Amino acid sequence: MRGPDRSRQRKNVARPFARHGRPLLARDPDAPVILYGWHTVSAALTNPARRIRRLWATENALRRLKDEGIAGPTAELVRPDAIAARLPADAVHQGLLAEADPLPSPDIEDLQDGIVLVLDQITDPHNVGAIVRTAAAFGVTAIVTTARHSPEATGVLAKSASGGLEAVPLVTVTNLARGLDVLKRSGFLLVGLAGEAETDLAAAELRRPLALVLGAEGKGLRQLTRATCDVLARLTLPGAIKSLNVSNAASVALYVATTRSTGA
Amino acid sequence: MRGPDRSRQRKNVARPFARHGRPLLARDPDAPVILYGWHTVSAALTNPARRIRRLWATENALRRLKDEGIAGPTAELVRPDAIAARLPADAVHQGLLAEADPLPSPDIEDLQDGIVLVLDQITDPHNVGAIVRTAAAFGVTAIVTTARHSPEATGVLAKSASGGLEAVPLVTVTNLARGLDVLKRSGFLLVGLAGEAETDLAAAELRRPLALVLGAEGKGLRQLTRATCDVLARLTLPGAIKSLNVSNAASVALYVATTRSTGA
Repeated sequence: MRGPDRSRQRKNVARPFARHGRPLLARDPDAPVILYGWHTVSAALTNPARRIRRLWATENALRRLKDEGIAGPTAELVRPDAIAARLPADAVHQGLLAEADPLPSPDIEDLQDGIVLVLDQITDPHNVGAIVRTAAAFGVTAIVTTARHSPEATGVLAKSASGGLEAVPLVTVTNLARGLDVLKRSGFLLVGLAGEAETDLAAAELRRPLALVLGAEGKGLRQLTRATCDVLARLTLPGAIKSLNVSNAASVALYVATTRSTGA
Repeated sequence: MRGPDRSRQRKNVARPFARHGRPLLARDPDAPVILYGWHTVSAALTNPARRIRRLWATENALRRLKDEGIAGPTAELVRPDAIAARLPADAVHQGLLAEADPLPSPDIEDLQDGIVLVLDQITDPHNVGAIVRTAAAFGVTAIVTTARHSPEATGVLAKSASGGLEAVPLVTVTNLARGLDVLKRSGFLLVGLAGEAETDLAAAELRRPLALVLGAEGKGLRQLTRATCDVLARLTLPGAIKSLNVSNAASVALYVATTRSTGA
C-alpha cells in the first residue's frame, strides 16, 4: 500500500501542463484534467458528461459566461495573473481555468459507424489538439490513439482542441494493430495515409464505416500499422513541398473522406 | 546620422526569435532572417535566390548535408547546445542554424495567375508558418500579407513553414483593401472565407486567377476586406464545432480551390 505522502508525490509528477509529449510516468488516474481558454472551458461547462471539479474565473469571464447563459459550478473569482501563474508562459487563458474529470471513453469495440480517426504515435499536443478540433468540425465518431506516445487530453492539447474534446470521444488502446483489427472486424475500411502510396485518396474507393489512419510527421505509419491497413493512400500535392503539417493533412483527408465516402 | 552604438541597439530590438506576433518596433531591414531546423535550412541552402550569410552546423548535421549532396557556405562547426542557446526553449533545430537575407518579394502588380492566398492580419507565426508550408504544397503563386499585424518571415514562422518560404513568395502590402483592388484589376476573383457566408466554397463558381482571402480566428475578415471581396464563402462543416484552426481552414480551402477552380 502507498502512504499519502507517496501519493502526493506522484500527483506532482503528473505534469498536466507539460508542453511536449507524454508524462515521464504513467498518469495518475485521479489527476484532474486542466482546461483553460474561453472555447475550451465554456464547451466543458455546457457538456453534461463533463464533471467540473473546480472553476476559476476573472470578473470579465464571469460576466461573459452569464451573458451567454452558461451555468456551471460556482466559480472562484480570481485576477488574470493568478490563472496565468498556473499555466505555461504565453498561454492564452481568457480568464478561465477549470479542473475536471477526464471524459468517459467508449471501448474500441463500441465503435460501429461513421468515420474514425486513428493516430499512430502523434506526440505533439498542439497538433493533436488541432486534429481533435478538426475532427469535431467534421463530425468524426471517435479518435483512437495509443496509450503510450500520445499526449494526454489536458492542458495545451485541450486548449488547441478549442472545445473539440467535448464533442469527439478519445479511445485509447494499448496496441494499435490489435485496435485496428477490432475496427476491421466491426466492418471499418482501414485507410492509412502515406505520402509514397500509389493510390490518391481522392480517387480511392471510400465507404463508411471508415477508419483514417495517420502517422507522425517524418516517421509516418509504423510498419505493423501499415500492414494492417486495407488501403494506403496519399494526398496529391501539386506544389514544391510534398508534405503537410499533420493537422493540415488530417483536415484535407477528413474533407476528402467526408465528402467522398458513402454508407452509414 | 545614427552612430554605431545606436545601430547596435536597434539590432538588439529586432527580436528575430520573438515567439508571438510582430516586433515592437519596425524591423531593421538589415537584420538577418533566422532559419533553423533541417527542412528549413536545407531548403534555403538549395534555393539559389536565398543568400546565406552565416551557417552553423553540428557534426551530425554536416554529415547529413554532405550525404544528401547539399552544398552551401562553409559551416561553422558547433555543438548542439550552442545552437539551442540562440533559439527559444523547445526549438527543434536538428543541428542547423543560418542567418540569411530575406528573399526578394514580387510586387503585388506582378501577380497574374494561379491561386494567391491573402492573409488579413493573421498574427500567430506558427499558424502563418503552417499556412506557408501548405501553400507551397498546393503550388500557390504567392501569399499576400499586411506589413503590420503580420509576423516576420523568420524564426518560428520559417521553422513551421518547413522550407515553404523558399517556394512561395510573400508579398507585403501596406493597405490590404488597396492590394485586393490591384489583384482585382489583374483579373483575380476575390473569394473571402467567412463562416457565416451563405455560399459553400465547394459549390461556388471558382476560376483562376483566384485570390483566397483568410482572416484571423475569432476576428475574421475586417469589414473593408469583406466589402472588397467578389464572393464570401464558407467551408461546410458537418460536426458540432463550426470553425477550424486557421491553418487547417487554409488547407481545406486550398484543397477545394485547387481541385475545383478552372483557368490559368
